[in-house]
Amino acid sequence: MPTIAQDLKALDALQAHLFAHRHATTSIMFAGETTDPAEAAGPRAEALATLEEEVHDLMCSGETGDLLARLGAEAAEGELNEVCAAQVRVLVREREERVCVPAATQADFARLCCEAQSVWTRAKRENDWASFSPYLDRMVATMREIAELRRPGQDAYDTLLDDFERGTSRAFYDAFFSQVKECVVPLVSAMREKGWQPSRACIEGAFDHDTQMALARDLLDIEGLRASALTLAETEHPFTDSVCSAHAYIATHVYENDVISNVYSMLHEGGHAMYEQNIDPTYDRTILNGGVSSGVHESQSRFFENYVGRSEAFAPVLLGALRRRFPGRFDGVSARELYLAVNRAEPGLVRTEADELTYPLHIIIRYEIEQMLFDGTATAQDVPALWNERYASYLGLEVPSDMLGCLQDVHWSCGDLGYFPTYALGGAYGAQLLDAMRADGVDFDGACESGDLAPIRTWLRERVWRHGRAIDPMPLIESACGAPFDASHYTRYLTEKFSGIYDL
Amino acid sequence: MPTIAQDLKALDALQAHLFAHRHATTSIMFAGETTDPAEAAGPRAEALATLEEEVHDLMCSGETGDLLARLGAEAAEGELNEVCAAQVRVLVREREERVCVPAATQADFARLCCEAQSVWTRAKRENDWASFSPYLDRMVATMREIAELRRPGQDAYDTLLDDFERGTSRAFYDAFFSQVKECVVPLVSAMREKGWQPSRACIEGAFDHDTQMALARDLLDIEGLRASALTLAETEHPFTDSVCSAHAYIATHVYENDVISNVYSMLHEGGHAMYEQNIDPTYDRTILNGGVSSGVHESQSRFFENYVGRSEAFAPVLLGALRRRFPGRFDGVSARELYLAVNRAEPGLVRTEADELTYPLHIIIRYEIEQMLFDGTATAQDVPALWNERYASYLGLEVPSDMLGCLQDVHWSCGDLGYFPTYALGGAYGAQLLDAMRADGVDFDGACESGDLAPIRTWLRERVWRHGRAIDPMPLIESACGAPFDASHYTRYLTEKFSGIYDL
Repeated sequence: MPTIAQDLKALDALQAHLFAHRHATTSIMFAGETTDPAEAAGPRAEALATLEEEVHDLMCSGETGDLLARLGAEAAEGELNEVCAAQVRVLVREREERVCVPAATQADFARLCCEAQSVWTRAKRENDWASFSPYLDRMVATMREIAELRRPGQDAYDTLLDDFERGTSRAFYDAFFSQVKECVVPLVSAMREKGWQPSRACIEGAFDHDTQMALARDLLDIEGLRASALTLAETEHPFTDSVCSAHAYIATHVYENDVISNVYSMLHEGGHAMYEQNIDPTYDRTILNGGVSSGVHESQSRFFENYVGRSEAFAPVLLGALRRRFPGRFDGVSARELYLAVNRAEPGLVRTEADELTYPLHIIIRYEIEQMLFDGTATAQDVPALWNERYASYLGLEVPSDMLGCLQDVHWSCGDLGYFPTYALGGAYGAQLLDAMRADGVDFDGACESGDLAPIRTWLRERVWRHGRAIDPMPLIESACGAPFDASHYTRYLTEKFSGIYDL
Repeated sequence: MPTIAQDLKALDALQAHLFAHRHATTSIMFAGETTDPAEAAGPRAEALATLEEEVHDLMCSGETGDLLARLGAEAAEGELNEVCAAQVRVLVREREERVCVPAATQADFARLCCEAQSVWTRAKRENDWASFSPYLDRMVATMREIAELRRPGQDAYDTLLDDFERGTSRAFYDAFFSQVKECVVPLVSAMREKGWQPSRACIEGAFDHDTQMALARDLLDIEGLRASALTLAETEHPFTDSVCSAHAYIATHVYENDVISNVYSMLHEGGHAMYEQNIDPTYDRTILNGGVSSGVHESQSRFFENYVGRSEAFAPVLLGALRRRFPGRFDGVSARELYLAVNRAEPGLVRTEADELTYPLHIIIRYEIEQMLFDGTATAQDVPALWNERYASYLGLEVPSDMLGCLQDVHWSCGDLGYFPTYALGGAYGAQLLDAMRADGVDFDGACESGDLAPIRTWLRERVWRHGRAIDPMPLIESACGAPFDASHYTRYLTEKFSGIYDL
């Protein structure tokens, strides 16, 4: 029987191996998304599969199981300090998620995802739902099987929702989304009746690539990211990743005919990266490093994209940044005009291009359809009709093709069913954090107006960022805000903001 | 007792793990040299150390030892095909090199190298040999200890030479370098007496960074590299790496005041990358992938840099490439003028800036000093005097500072003692390959003049590249050239070329 000291040393060693593998896969995948040449895809996939197999073997070994069982018992008796106890808690969970699924089932699922992604890519291009449809059914069946293995007797979709955001379930999201619908649907109707839209003329035109990249760095700097701990590269679809507080990665995409697209990609990805850079550095190379959940991560990205970046208080700062990089181009533009232009809300077909107001409706549609697939009231072949009905009723739009409809998102082909709701939840977390911050005396508007966001960062670092994975999402939001999660902060924010802009 | 089929499956699995780790470390290190921010250095080093530990444990495990022993016995009985037998042969050697060195000794050496590199970096900047000197002594002592563990009773420096280029030894290099000295020293003297130098005026001036990078891609294309299997990035000191035939990496450096520097970096690194891209693709993800040795690798890089790139036949093609990217800048320049400008030979203090003729003298000086350190006739504190004496006698130069003298190269601080000689040997291999290619009927000059290097590539692919690590360097050169290695091809080449240019 090893001593506690020996077990704690083994715990460190286990986490060192997990960190090394995370660094390896992050480096390989980031290069894959940004700079790798075409032929590199095959060997990259092989290397990633082998590295994943190594992590699986390490986590599922009897030795790791025994170690975590012994340390879990020590933790229960209060023999471990808080940090080690949190490490053991998170590792035990990660092991449980892997160990009860036979390696062959897991491998079949990985292969199915691989296949489904390439089928989806072609299906989207060729507007061919029928070819992807059987894969979605197989995906749902396999995910249901795995969920049942992991949490026998529990609703499979509940398990998936909880995977992506611990503490959530259908009951939780049903309540959340019904509150959101009650707020958003009438606002969208009122706005449509009004018939007026702010002009976007002031942000239209061509903007050179290299200058946009320079602007991108200016914006990351205004946000407060440490350039000394950031890799910035270019890709097709922007994303953020990280290996520890000393090294975050952002990949972005510049459109020369749309300067605003990259401005908000930067503020959004910068929010993700700021969270990662500001996790307690003593958590580096342990399982506690990293954002705690998709929902909390989205709350940070959307905080900087929308609550800061699309606020009227920040508009003069953004205008100043645009004027410095594009001299003369924004001379006749007022901060108010810019604010209105970047907040124009309009029902649209594509989720990733949606404004703050209509965005949650796109999520609700996906959430409703995913539930039907899992509870057996629909199969994949019903999806286009279900999709199109909902876009007509919630957004008043006719969907001209599945390419612009139920084939638009990659998520279902990757096995990410249950993921979409966290996008909307992140927005709602953000609104509650904003109210809590103000109630705590942070001069939010003053910080935005001055362009010095330090007071906002200080509050978020203390309440959210530094904790990494040590506190679960719901307790984290509750301790940060001094109250349990409450969506009314979000609905109030949307109501006030868009009533104001559209004079509803 | 497992069946052969089971053992061959285990052999594949072992190589899949080694490949995954090679991909991981290559990706992490390439990012480290090209795009990583400053704070990333610490976590990167930790991840690399852990990944290296994993490879060490895998290679040194009793299970791997037993597997290789069984397969080695099968190979000896002719039960394995040639490829599997070669895999086993190379793996057995790699295991032997690791397994007889205690993990603690290996770890101490790794730490010593880490420390020595940072001491050297500061010492070079501050021209402070005294601070680096004790590290070099410790390095030599540890390397001697490790060499003794690995090949008891054998001369330690011989072991190191053989590590970097299998089949070489002090006796080998003594003979080689004495032949080279006999050729080069009189040529350099004659040249100095002559007092004439070709003008470099035609290649001087400022050349914009982005256009130089476009030119770099043109040159790689002329060489024949597949862009679809190449990552090209920028760094301080150019280098090439690879993970398999489908993915090579080149990092280069552009000087806006020196267009020729990057031209030859590209041709040089392109030669390395071409070797890697053209290894038999069935060797991908096995231990047989990769260039066989440093010497053979240098033979390929120098082949394209010097034998092709600095030939008079290629000068019109190079001139054309320069004219296309820098319209007007090279209008008044003739191919002959360009040829002379890029072949100007002059004794200098810095190895990496040396021309083809004086280059081997820089290597000989390092080789002589390394031998003295290992045979105990000198310690690190004697090095500056030994260095400066040799630069005076071989190159006729006074060394004004250790920064421009014995502190100039990074190698000694990394534990790469025994490495330098392979640079000169690579040049000599190249000259012999060139003669063999011509004797085989390849129209070398015609290919260079036309800019279509396909006939040269076809010959090198067949004779050298495709074999990867399956054939050892000396047998590889012998089979490629139809005769054992012979330095007189090299000395003849240098004599003819520089007698011609300088009319000696």
